[in-house]
Amino acid sequence: MAKEGITARSEDYSQWYQDIIQTAELAENGPVRGTIIIKPYGFAIWEAIQRELDSRLKGLGVKNAYFPMLIPESLLRREAQHIEGFSPEVAVVTFAGGRDLDEKLVLRPTSETIIYEAFARWIQSYRDLPMLINQWVNVIRWELRPRLFLRGTEFLWQEGHTAHETLEEADEFARLILKTYKNFFEEYLSIPVIEGQKPEWERFAGAHTTYTVEAMMQDGRALQIGTSHNLGQNFSRAFEITFLDREQNRQYVWQTSWGVSTRSIGGLVMTHSDDVGLVLPPKVAPIKVVVTILGEVTDDLKTKGRELVNIFKANGLSTEIDERAIRPGNKFYEWERKGIPVRIEIGAKELKKGEVVLFRRDTKERMNLPLDDNLVAHVKNLLESIQLNLLNSARKRLKDNTVEPGTIDEFKSALASGKFTLIPFCGDFEAAQVIKNETQATLRCIPFDQNSQPNTRCLFSGKSAKYLALFAKAY
Amino acid sequence: MAKEGITARSEDYSQWYQDIIQTAELAENGPVRGTIIIKPYGFAIWEAIQRELDSRLKGLGVKNAYFPMLIPESLLRREAQHIEGFSPEVAVVTFAGGRDLDEKLVLRPTSETIIYEAFARWIQSYRDLPMLINQWVNVIRWELRPRLFLRGTEFLWQEGHTAHETLEEADEFARLILKTYKNFFEEYLSIPVIEGQKPEWERFAGAHTTYTVEAMMQDGRALQIGTSHNLGQNFSRAFEITFLDREQNRQYVWQTSWGVSTRSIGGLVMTHSDDVGLVLPPKVAPIKVVVTILGEVTDDLKTKGRELVNIFKANGLSTEIDERAIRPGNKFYEWERKGIPVRIEIGAKELKKGEVVLFRRDTKERMNLPLDDNLVAHVKNLLESIQLNLLNSARKRLKDNTVEPGTIDEFKSALASGKFTLIPFCGDFEAAQVIKNETQATLRCIPFDQNSQPNTRCLFSGKSAKYLALFAKAY
Repeated sequence: MAKEGITARSEDYSQWYQDIIQTAELAENGPVRGTIIIKPYGFAIWEAIQRELDSRLKGLGVKNAYFPMLIPESLLRREAQHIEGFSPEVAVVTFAGGRDLDEKLVLRPTSETIIYEAFARWIQSYRDLPMLINQWVNVIRWELRPRLFLRGTEFLWQEGHTAHETLEEADEFARLILKTYKNFFEEYLSIPVIEGQKPEWERFAGAHTTYTVEAMMQDGRALQIGTSHNLGQNFSRAFEITFLDREQNRQYVWQTSWGVSTRSIGGLVMTHSDDVGLVLPPKVAPIKVVVTILGEVTDDLKTKGRELVNIFKANGLSTEIDERAIRPGNKFYEWERKGIPVRIEIGAKELKKGEVVLFRRDTKERMNLPLDDNLVAHVKNLLESIQLNLLNSARKRLKDNTVEPGTIDEFKSALASGKFTLIPFCGDFEAAQVIKNETQATLRCIPFDQNSQPNTRCLFSGKSAKYLALFAKAY
Repeated sequence: MAKEGITARSEDYSQWYQDIIQTAELAENGPVRGTIIIKPYGFAIWEAIQRELDSRLKGLGVKNAYFPMLIPESLLRREAQHIEGFSPEVAVVTFAGGRDLDEKLVLRPTSETIIYEAFARWIQSYRDLPMLINQWVNVIRWELRPRLFLRGTEFLWQEGHTAHETLEEADEFARLILKTYKNFFEEYLSIPVIEGQKPEWERFAGAHTTYTVEAMMQDGRALQIGTSHNLGQNFSRAFEITFLDREQNRQYVWQTSWGVSTRSIGGLVMTHSDDVGLVLPPKVAPIKVVVTILGEVTDDLKTKGRELVNIFKANGLSTEIDERAIRPGNKFYEWERKGIPVRIEIGAKELKKGEVVLFRRDTKERMNLPLDDNLVAHVKNLLESIQLNLLNSARKRLKDNTVEPGTIDEFKSALASGKFTLIPFCGDFEAAQVIKNETQATLRCIPFDQNSQPNTRCLFSGKSAKYLALFAKAY
C-alpha cells in the first residue's frame, strides 16, 4: 500500500490533484503517453456513473448500440469542418494483418461519421424518427498536454446521436439532454453546473449550436463537463440522410450529438476532495460505509462488526469491514483517503456502552449513536445529508466566486484571482482573443440565464453588447 | 422495416444464419471488412449477457478495471510465444497527432502484456494476492474470413487476468472460471457445453494449459464459446511479476486469463433459432412478452392491453404492446422473427369471453387462458418452462449427435455427417493433422469427463491411447 503524502491544495493544486488520484488508487498513466489505466476503485466510480446516466438516457427512449472503432479515412473526410477540427488529433492504422493497408483507418476520435453512414441506410421515413442512439466506448484523440481523466489520448465516454424531423425538435432534444446532464451532475455527483451555449468559435467541429454544462473546480477554473450539439443538417447533407416526411417530401434529417466522459471523474475529484484525500458524494461512492474495529480485535467485536455489515448490506448499502490489527489512525487515514462517506467505529468501550461512533468524511465530524435498530436509518439520513451538503458547499463556492465586474480592471483582476466573471459582451472573436492573450481566460459559455444583464455595452470593447458571457480560466 | 425472407436451414445453414441476424436486426457489417455494427436489439442482448456474467464474476471477487487499447510494440514482444501467435493478426498505428510515431503502437488483440506490465508494479507481497482483474473492452484481430459475431476484426469481450501464489491455486481458479462459464451458458443462454482441455497445439499463445467450453450448433459444428487459460509463469517471468511469499522468498506469480466474447451471440442464434427467425431463452431476451391487439384496435382493447403491459412491467417482465392497425399475421411474424418468448393476443372476441391467447415462441404452441389475476403467474411459469425446454432440446441434440465410433470408417463417416465424435487418441499432433486434412475436423478438446474411455489403443493411429478426445468440424 502506497504511503505517499498529499500536497496541500494551497501549495500546488495541480500536484494535489495527481496525489489524490494516486493515493486513492483511482488511475495511473499507461505506457503510451496520454493513455490511462483506470484502477479497480476508479473504475467502480465510472461503473456507478455509467449505471445512473445510462438509466436516465434510456428513460428518454435512447437505445444503446455499438459502432466500429476503425473508420475509413474517406468517411471521416465527408463533413468538411469535422475533418478540419479533428485531423490534428487522429491516430491512424496503416498496417494490419501483415501488410500495408490500401486505405488508412482512423481510430474514432468521435463517431458521427461512422454512425451517420448507417443512419443513411436505416432512416427512410418520418416513421423511423426520432432515431435515438447511444454508445459507451473508448475514443482516441492525440493530446499534447495530457492529464489523468481531464485530457487523454484515450478516454471512455458515452456518445449519443439522434435524428429528427425538424430543426425545432432537434434543438429541443439537444437541450433536453443538456438538462439531463445538469440534473445528473447535480443530483448524483453533487456538482453544480452552469448551462449555456458556446460562442461560434468554440463549437464542436460540424455543429450548428453547441450547448455546454460548465463546472467550477476548487481553484476557480472551469471544467467543460458535458456537451450537447445541435448539428443542424450539416452531417445529414454530407451523409445523405434523408426521410420522406408526412407530406411525402424527401428531406434531410436534423441531428444532435452529445457526450459525457471519464473527464467527469476528474471533475468529481476537483469539486469535493480535500487535503486529506478523496471525498465522494454517497450516491457515486462504490463503498458507502466502512465498519472499523478499534483496539484489540476480539471475537465479540468481530461478531458485532460483521453483524453490522450484514445489516447495512441487507439495506442496500455497500459496506466493508476493517478488522485488521493495525493502529486505528492508520485505518482511519486509509479509508479517508479513499473517500468512504461514513465510517462506523466500534471498540470494547463502545460495545460495553451499547453505542458506536459515526464519522462523516465530508465535514470530518464525529458523533456517538446508540447501537440499536435505528442505526441503519441514521446512517441513511447521514448519507443523504452528506450528498446534499457537498452539493450546497459546491453551490456556495460557485456563487461566491462568480462576479459581475463593472470595469475592465475589475474584470482582469477577477480573472487573475480565479473567479468566474459575467460581463456584457460584444460577441466578437477578436475581442475574445485579446482577453485570452491578456488573461488566459476563455469565453466558457453564454449562460441560458441572461436575466441579470446589466448593460447594453460590451464591458471589454465598448461596442454594443450581444449577450452576457461567462469568462474564466479553464481546464 | 425489412421484409426479406429467411433461407431454410436445410437449404443453406450459413445463409440462414445471416438472414436471422439481418431480419432480427441484430447486427450488420461495418464499412471496414470484418468490423461489426451491433444494432440496438443485438446490443440489448449483449447488455443482458454482460449484466449476468459480470455479476457472476464479481461474485468470485473479480474487480473490473480499464487498460489502454494502445500497446507499444516492444511490450507485445516480451513473451515470445505470445507475439508469435498474435503477430499475423495485429493492426498497427504508425501515425498520430500529425506525425509518424517513433514506436509503433499495436491495437490490443488481447491485453496480457499491458495488464501484466502493471501487475509487475502492483504486486509486491503474498498479501497482494490473489489479484483478480477483469475488463469489458473491444479488441482488434485482423480476420481473413470474418463472419458476423463468430469471427471479427473487431469484437467485444470480457478478459479476466489473475495472479496467484501457487500453480495449484492458479489452475483451480482457471477451472473455477470455466465452471462459471459453463453454468452461465447453460442457466442463462440455455446452451449446453462440453468442458475440456485443449491439446498443446491448440493452446492460447503463451499458455501452460487452455481450458475450453465447446458448444454444438444445430448443423453439428462445434463453437468454442469460452476459454480459460492457466498461464503458469510464462508471463510472470517475461514481465518480472514477483512477490515475497509467506517465507519471505521472492517468487514469480502464477497466472490465468480467460474470456467470453460477442461470439456467444452467434452461438445463441445457432443453438435455438428456427426457419421463422430468432428464438431467445427468456432470461436473455430484451423483451420477454409482447401484447398484440387483434382485429380492430378499439379503445377498450387498447385500455386492456396497456393495463396488461403495466401489470407485467410491475412484475419485472419487460413487455411491449403492438396496437398498430395492421394484419395480425404481419404483427405475429415481426415479433416471431425477433424471438420474443411469449406473445399475448387479445381481440374483441377474447375480451368478451374474458380470456387471452398465449403463444410460446419455442414450440409455437397456442393456449387460451382466463384473463384473471393468475395470468402473470402463468406467464412467469411459461417463461421458465421455455428457458428449460430450450436447454433440454439443445442437450438432447448434443447427446443424440455425439458418437463413439468403433472403426476409422465409422469415425470418418460420423464426422462427415456432422457429429461430435469421441475416440481414444494417441495425442500426436501429426495424427490430428492427418485427421484434419482428411475430414476437416479438429481436436476440440480432451473432455474432463473421461469415464467412458473404452479402449487403450488410439482408434486412428493404433498407438497407445493417451486420452479420450472430442473431434468435430468447427466454426
